[in-house]
Amino acid sequence: MTTMSESTTPPLAELVRQVRKTREYKRLTDAIPYTRFMGIGVENLAGEMLCRMAFNPRNIGNSLIPALHGGTLGALLESAAVFELLLQTNTERVPKVISLTVDFLRSGKPQDTFAKAFVTRQGRRVANVRVDAWQDDRTRPIASAHALFLLSEP
Amino acid sequence: MTTMSESTTPPLAELVRQVRKTREYKRLTDAIPYTRFMGIGVENLAGEMLCRMAFNPRNIGNSLIPALHGGTLGALLESAAVFELLLQTNTERVPKVISLTVDFLRSGKPQDTFAKAFVTRQGRRVANVRVDAWQDDRTRPIASAHALFLLSEP
Repeated sequence: MTTMSESTTPPLAELVRQVRKTREYKRLTDAIPYTRFMGIGVENLAGEMLCRMAFNPRNIGNSLIPALHGGTLGALLESAAVFELLLQTNTERVPKVISLTVDFLRSGKPQDTFAKAFVTRQGRRVANVRVDAWQDDRTRPIASAHALFLLSEP
Repeated sequence: MTTMSESTTPPLAELVRQVRKTREYKRLTDAIPYTRFMGIGVENLAGEMLCRMAFNPRNIGNSLIPALHGGTLGALLESAAVFELLLQTNTERVPKVISLTVDFLRSGKPQDTFAKAFVTRQGRRVANVRVDAWQDDRTRPIASAHALFLLSEP
């Protein structure tokens, strides 16, 4: 994993342009070590781009319930927001997260978790994004977040 | 890792009581799959209990800078808050995180990251915790958080 070099991967801006056309989302998530490692991917499910975090026993925070560690849900929610911004807007840099607020609504069960981000405002410099995460029932989210991103730098 | 069973580990309440006395913090962080997996541990450094996240290349979010993924910092900050509550208060359950707000202040470099949590208010049911994370210079935090935890359930 540490042998991946820039020479074998197109620059991110080019990769994002390609993925916007080809919808081979896996190429994008594979280019980011931490999302690849966490099993977080982007999929087109029933015509909608969703983020999925595959369940892995190492993601358990509380072994007794058992429940997913809150940190894994934070990573999923933030990643969903970044991918939504990269794929739905014209930004060609990785947006920089400024702040992230997560409300933990229900325990995460030991199973796959989905997330969908909505860009609620896109300015020239800053974007606001809302994200929901759920498992069995989309109407009963297990976590929700709002995040601020810096889109470009002076 | 998935073979760890409750039979080989004391119940968490008992483990926490033991660690409060013996200060063998590693036993506690090893009992939580996700923190063990993320290389997040608790250490007594110069007479102060700090949380440390060991650097690992898989924790990179942006390979170009390179910078740690925000999700890894969120996991560190949340874990530091949980360990502080477990070790400094009388709660014997794992506190349940209700909400977490993270301000990302500087890019996380590819090196170890430290965190220190402060319980700013402990009520009967809810605790408020503030957490700072830094690398080279403690006076220049790379992220800070405030979190709400539920300490017990009706």
